[in-house]
Amino acid sequence: MNTHHSIVPVILCGGSGSRLWPLSRKSLPKQFAPLVGDGNLFELTLQRISEGHFNKPLIVASEAHRFHVLKQAANLGMQCEVLLEPAGRNTAPAIIMAALHLKANGHDGHMLVLPSDHLIPDHIGFSEAINAGMTASQNSKLVTFGISPTGPETGYGYIQTENSSGAVLDVCAFHEKPAVAKAEQMLAEGGYFWNAGIFLVSVDRLLALAELHQPEMLAAVEDAIADMTRDDSFLRPDAEKWKLVPAESIDYAIIEKCDDIACVPFSGSWSDLGDWNSVFAVDGADKNGNRLRGGVTAVDCVNTNLWSTNDQTRLVGLGLDGIVAVATDDAIMVANASRTQDVREIVAVLDKAGVPQAHQHTKDYRPWGWFESLIVAPGYQVKRLHVDPRARLSLQSHQHRSEHWVVVAGTATVLINEREKQVNTNESVYINVGDKHRLANDTDQPLVVIEVQTGSYLGEDDIVRYHDDFSRGLGEL
Amino acid sequence: MNTHHSIVPVILCGGSGSRLWPLSRKSLPKQFAPLVGDGNLFELTLQRISEGHFNKPLIVASEAHRFHVLKQAANLGMQCEVLLEPAGRNTAPAIIMAALHLKANGHDGHMLVLPSDHLIPDHIGFSEAINAGMTASQNSKLVTFGISPTGPETGYGYIQTENSSGAVLDVCAFHEKPAVAKAEQMLAEGGYFWNAGIFLVSVDRLLALAELHQPEMLAAVEDAIADMTRDDSFLRPDAEKWKLVPAESIDYAIIEKCDDIACVPFSGSWSDLGDWNSVFAVDGADKNGNRLRGGVTAVDCVNTNLWSTNDQTRLVGLGLDGIVAVATDDAIMVANASRTQDVREIVAVLDKAGVPQAHQHTKDYRPWGWFESLIVAPGYQVKRLHVDPRARLSLQSHQHRSEHWVVVAGTATVLINEREKQVNTNESVYINVGDKHRLANDTDQPLVVIEVQTGSYLGEDDIVRYHDDFSRGLGEL
Repeated sequence: MNTHHSIVPVILCGGSGSRLWPLSRKSLPKQFAPLVGDGNLFELTLQRISEGHFNKPLIVASEAHRFHVLKQAANLGMQCEVLLEPAGRNTAPAIIMAALHLKANGHDGHMLVLPSDHLIPDHIGFSEAINAGMTASQNSKLVTFGISPTGPETGYGYIQTENSSGAVLDVCAFHEKPAVAKAEQMLAEGGYFWNAGIFLVSVDRLLALAELHQPEMLAAVEDAIADMTRDDSFLRPDAEKWKLVPAESIDYAIIEKCDDIACVPFSGSWSDLGDWNSVFAVDGADKNGNRLRGGVTAVDCVNTNLWSTNDQTRLVGLGLDGIVAVATDDAIMVANASRTQDVREIVAVLDKAGVPQAHQHTKDYRPWGWFESLIVAPGYQVKRLHVDPRARLSLQSHQHRSEHWVVVAGTATVLINEREKQVNTNESVYINVGDKHRLANDTDQPLVVIEVQTGSYLGEDDIVRYHDDFSRGLGEL
Repeated sequence: MNTHHSIVPVILCGGSGSRLWPLSRKSLPKQFAPLVGDGNLFELTLQRISEGHFNKPLIVASEAHRFHVLKQAANLGMQCEVLLEPAGRNTAPAIIMAALHLKANGHDGHMLVLPSDHLIPDHIGFSEAINAGMTASQNSKLVTFGISPTGPETGYGYIQTENSSGAVLDVCAFHEKPAVAKAEQMLAEGGYFWNAGIFLVSVDRLLALAELHQPEMLAAVEDAIADMTRDDSFLRPDAEKWKLVPAESIDYAIIEKCDDIACVPFSGSWSDLGDWNSVFAVDGADKNGNRLRGGVTAVDCVNTNLWSTNDQTRLVGLGLDGIVAVATDDAIMVANASRTQDVREIVAVLDKAGVPQAHQHTKDYRPWGWFESLIVAPGYQVKRLHVDPRARLSLQSHQHRSEHWVVVAGTATVLINEREKQVNTNESVYINVGDKHRLANDTDQPLVVIEVQTGSYLGEDDIVRYHDDFSRGLGEL
């Protein structure tokens, strides 16, 4: 068995997953959202490539989610490097950047490019498929992984192969998302596979293909990363130069232009969780065709999917047929099940109307943990802060608000104007306007603090930072 | 113009309005819920009978809502007496009790019986209709008020009159909620009116009719109120004896058995807000037939009614047709618009499953104001308390929890173990397990306190009361 030591997983983590609003939003997109069981899709992706003794992964992510990436990896005891895209440029520039970075750092083995937001429960089967593709990759082929179709799906692109069976097939064409009739025909004919966007290729081969098909893009990316800056695990290309990189998908830019692509069929369970219907499809339906998650109740409903993600909110359907409803803390979507592909329209409408729920969750993840606003009213706000073990917030002060902290779990170490004190569970402390202060968790247990803010202005931007463990910019939260 | 001085409005306030879940629940039923504009239906009902110089009203309500009744009346500067039904016995016993009470207290004029949960915006027209009925009532008639139908409604009972026009008509029959064909026929024929459950009758006549048609019920009610106890404005019949009173509606028990009933037609706007469709019908629809309230967004929806009652929650519909969705703090209903009459089934299902949202709101109204739970988690809970001006909580202690109070608006007067102190906005105070304490608002401004509870048990029943301004029972909250 191949141990994958010469393979670097390149995980694309820049997607926003707006079709899964309201659970997935810019502030916590699909790959980090609690969509499946206990973990999230990014974590499951990391697990998938931790089991086959791959090299440490290279992640391409956006600035906003860098601490998420690091924390998830740390939770699994994994190390990784994170390439931070200054702006989304679709998949081709991200992958070329990854290849250039690997090459520059002496890795001329193979790269396994994979999305961070797919569900592939069969890790062993996945690993075996990668093994099956290695010989072809070593023979300078770009090796796609095709999902054996289980029905005439119209939501995926298809890979057409020369033969219908075998461990490694030759690709003869790619097909866009088909109409139903075409999908049925392909299913009947055989030799067609769903394009999961996963592929294996040697670094040299990928760069050669880029040189051949996208010389300008390659040059622009090379230029942008020539003076890449490093900050611990984070690598940043030049933001101005990155703007000049053309945006295109790897499929259009390179793969569909090649004529020697291989495809390894994968018949294990797979889902791209691309819309709410596919998220619910992971569950079995009850006898009425309903799929129910969390605190929900269906009265006389059929073919209806209900999910309340918040255990303090009850969602009830009455007499519904073909409805999908998802409730979170601060936003609820009720959609006709035939329209789940259009959920991104909601995000566009809310964005245009300036509704914060378009992009922001109530729970705000920070490198030290997270906080959520429990209530905002004129003159005061109540938050719950969760500080990770051994983490601390920045040393800061506020011009317009005072803060009362009540420790409700764990022990806080609080610094106020140079004086440090321990604040135990069921104790409180007061931070006056202007006080220079810092909240820290010096223990191995989580710290939970209820923060009551009072003041005429309570915006997150009322903060002066004197020192920060996470090198966050002045205006950054 | 008759000034109504000899008319006592008898307001029936015992309904639970379960067809308007989740906004209406036992803890704050329909007549007190914020269904219409700024006020609530009970308040509007009080206003309606405050404008025609009626006598002070007599309210029949349940024990659970007595402070609500009093507070609403006080807000309008009105005095009232409140008969507290120990248990719901439908409308006939409540009305007979009211008549007996009026008679015993020297009022032998007229009583105007009216539900507390209807919407009748035209107070002047309403008052004129009452005037029109007075002569008939003085001639010992029971005078119903019939709403001129605006369509073939199948959700109401109908009053059939001998003539179709005139200020006071003779009633020849009552009809149950009809099928559509029958409703259309009645509308075409004329002389039919919707039965709004409002009637005017002299106290003596009502008692004579009870004697004639319901001698046993009359005797049972007489028995239950023989030793009625008074506690300020509250009057309580004997609970054990009340149990023996048969439950029946005034329509079945008396009105439909009489042969000399009058009907005053009322052509002003009226709604019983009997289900969600009729609540939304108060609003105009947009060009797609949608009615939208609060923080909601409709994308490609038609004939859809959406309401988010909570300004921190966004409700979005996508591609819906004929859906009604109502979101509150802790519960969301999504119903097929053709099923709004069946919303009470939801309450039954939730009740059976022991789901608190069946009957309880997050906001809990108390005689001193209200509180709401912002978050409950193992070991701690955060509440927001709103104390009315010049009100105070009971003197109490807790065995299992400590409390941190942060004043975020107003000024609190706090008593802890015999020591009293003022706690201003942006100050806090700590109440240890076992401390005897009291929170008071001695000012003319509302007081808002954030309470952080910590402890192993946080139930509302962990309370020892030493003194209470509101004479609440030991186990009562």
